[in-house]
Amino acid sequence: MNGAVDLPLGLAELSFRAAGESLVRRSVLPSGVRVLSEQVPGARSATIGFWVAVGSRDEQPTGAGHPATYGSTHFLEHLLFKGTAGRSALDIAVSFDAVGGEHNALTAKEHTCYYAKVQDRDLPMAVEVLADMFTSSLLDAGEFETERGVILEELAMAGDDPADVAGERFFSAVLGEHPLGRPIGGTPETIRAATRDAVWEHYRANYRPQDLVVTVAGAVDHDELIRALERALSDAGWRMDEPGTPVERRTAEPAPLERGPELTVVERPIEQVNLLVGVPGLVASDERRPAMSVLNAIFGSGMSSRLFQEVRERRGLAYSVYSFAPAYSDAGLFGMYAGCAPQKAGTVVELLRSELERLAEHGVTPEELARAAGQLGGASALALEDSDTRMSRLGRAELTLGEFQDLDEALRRIALVTADDVRALAADLVSRPYSVVAVGATDEAALSGAAEAVSATSVA
Amino acid sequence: MNGAVDLPLGLAELSFRAAGESLVRRSVLPSGVRVLSEQVPGARSATIGFWVAVGSRDEQPTGAGHPATYGSTHFLEHLLFKGTAGRSALDIAVSFDAVGGEHNALTAKEHTCYYAKVQDRDLPMAVEVLADMFTSSLLDAGEFETERGVILEELAMAGDDPADVAGERFFSAVLGEHPLGRPIGGTPETIRAATRDAVWEHYRANYRPQDLVVTVAGAVDHDELIRALERALSDAGWRMDEPGTPVERRTAEPAPLERGPELTVVERPIEQVNLLVGVPGLVASDERRPAMSVLNAIFGSGMSSRLFQEVRERRGLAYSVYSFAPAYSDAGLFGMYAGCAPQKAGTVVELLRSELERLAEHGVTPEELARAAGQLGGASALALEDSDTRMSRLGRAELTLGEFQDLDEALRRIALVTADDVRALAADLVSRPYSVVAVGATDEAALSGAAEAVSATSVA
Repeated sequence: MNGAVDLPLGLAELSFRAAGESLVRRSVLPSGVRVLSEQVPGARSATIGFWVAVGSRDEQPTGAGHPATYGSTHFLEHLLFKGTAGRSALDIAVSFDAVGGEHNALTAKEHTCYYAKVQDRDLPMAVEVLADMFTSSLLDAGEFETERGVILEELAMAGDDPADVAGERFFSAVLGEHPLGRPIGGTPETIRAATRDAVWEHYRANYRPQDLVVTVAGAVDHDELIRALERALSDAGWRMDEPGTPVERRTAEPAPLERGPELTVVERPIEQVNLLVGVPGLVASDERRPAMSVLNAIFGSGMSSRLFQEVRERRGLAYSVYSFAPAYSDAGLFGMYAGCAPQKAGTVVELLRSELERLAEHGVTPEELARAAGQLGGASALALEDSDTRMSRLGRAELTLGEFQDLDEALRRIALVTADDVRALAADLVSRPYSVVAVGATDEAALSGAAEAVSATSVA
Repeated sequence: MNGAVDLPLGLAELSFRAAGESLVRRSVLPSGVRVLSEQVPGARSATIGFWVAVGSRDEQPTGAGHPATYGSTHFLEHLLFKGTAGRSALDIAVSFDAVGGEHNALTAKEHTCYYAKVQDRDLPMAVEVLADMFTSSLLDAGEFETERGVILEELAMAGDDPADVAGERFFSAVLGEHPLGRPIGGTPETIRAATRDAVWEHYRANYRPQDLVVTVAGAVDHDELIRALERALSDAGWRMDEPGTPVERRTAEPAPLERGPELTVVERPIEQVNLLVGVPGLVASDERRPAMSVLNAIFGSGMSSRLFQEVRERRGLAYSVYSFAPAYSDAGLFGMYAGCAPQKAGTVVELLRSELERLAEHGVTPEELARAAGQLGGASALALEDSDTRMSRLGRAELTLGEFQDLDEALRRIALVTADDVRALAADLVSRPYSVVAVGATDEAALSGAAEAVSATSVA
């Protein structure tokens, strides 16, 4: 069996061959822990991830007796590296460094993932150390204070990067007050106000057996993985025989969006202005996601894309220009980025908008459609050579989509997209309210030109 | 045969098995074109690179009747994507995008490389398109002007990134007037002054058969590759039967260095200060390079390294902190980076320096030595799973080192490094003149503390 496979939470065991002859297996342990593996023939290494479906969107605003917990998910992620009852921070670091493994974590808007990439022989060690970190971190009060300083420096670094700042502001501009609109790491104010109690509470509430999803891709044997994991979690004090039910997935219904500011300007005395122009997009479960992939490939991904050809190749206005379409459970975005000289901001925003309008009015050619299918297929095939990509695909299948699509199935859906589908999607996008974010050097005339270019059509 | 293999320029054919059962072959074609391939069993894709041993260091200062050509190597690299007699810029982009390939180029201080990563079936296309770009680019005058704008935006983007700026300044601080000290992309002034004639001259002078090195790793058959390459280059108008001799490698003698400024401060109204502290390092051919790899792993690479543990884990002073040791034919650097709050600059510089002093005085433990060997071995094994890494390794072997080392041989040399070797190297480093670069928010007291911390020992 291969193609698209449903991952129903009630089913304990599932096993199938994916395209390219890898073997995908999924088990739900009695404790509620979910385990997904993809064994890739010939692989000599593996990537493993420990996931929970908790991200910055789940943090709480100021409430009775407590400040906002914004940033606490990311704060917790840092603290999991700072030591357990049995391992110091140095022990954890040494475990992976001594074998040349990669080892890190990622806090996102809807999930948190702790991962490692190691040679096959080191996978049992990775299971053990990650299980220890996940279950038994101390969140030592002294370490908490030290790490607060580290996180403030991380936020300062991101705040000094104009493209980073533009990206953060773009989310809040398009999504307004929706929790997905907030920055992942919190703000310096919420980090200064964070308490160990709140982060501890977050840890206790969300890092339980029924929250944990473990995904492994590469050189992995599913049965051995489960044995190693059961042993490691049980050694760490978890009751693996106590029955648990995996937590339900998030709602997939689009949330109503209250619009953020139409034009956001962050002045910086630098050379470029970083421009982001965009609209609300599609949710992750939207059936038009394959059409969105095709649209984005044709419109703003790669050197042959319309934005690259028009803005960079023909006009020389920007070095970096592209579009992107992130999707979450109940909201999404479609955005266009360009970094340019401040006096060109009006021209560039007008170009970005008019290229999207042109797509909505005139659609795409058969050649562009065929090329997009080839582009998405080839790029996916290359990406899947890396076990990182496969490990993440398993996590997304379990946490976000509720189904596993192998490469053949994903490409089958892409191949079904028609020129009409792409045009209709573009027409839908241009009917949504535009937001513009400008971070960097600003030129007043150019920016008011940019605002006009966008507001002229944002109620089309 | 495997291990370390000399790559003498006079030998037309060489073939050997490298560690991990890949097959490495090298041919020198009658025209002087060099071809190296590494066939990796089971690979389904390949990475190909077209190299010349010309980089920013080879550019000319202002001379009789011409402005400085600084940045012309990078300018030329951009122009090779802009069209040939038979292919427009869009044609080139479409060729790779239509198959989802990666396609880009890299200008460095001592070489330029045009590369692509594609599925196995697309390798003949990649050979053909890269050969066309390499031999037959038009450098159209109109495209030249458009691309000047793109490159100015690229420089502006880099200039807006404080860590990028710190890196550029660090090279000129440590290497002084040495040509390796110059920024790769030139400056806005030299790009504005660049003429098509000068870039054309650069192209004609340095992109000849005897300059070209083609390296391919992954799913590749050496004989087929040579046939495809001979055909593509000959179709493009090159006389492949006209005998040529590959250009000699660069000198490997360390050049005398005139010291740059002791303290370089670039003020920016941002939150962090980006600090770089360092000294001249080792040239690429220095027999102490394996000891430098071990030193750098222990000192500043990975979460268990001394810098990470001391500056971030124990003190919480920085989010990003590490050391690095780039090596070129006749000069090298050893540097330490940290981004921190401006008022901590003095403390951090003092810490970086004193940690290096401690290494020079007290050396490393047997555990650290063993861990470094494991770290370098494991990380290399993981990196070599990617054909990109293998393709680059072949290029470095041919252009810089004059020998090919497989993983086993590289690790054998690492295993021979003793604690004394590391301590002696550290002692040598701390005896060299320190340079400090600070880019970002500055605190006068902290910076003068930083300068003192360094000058106190820089003539030890």
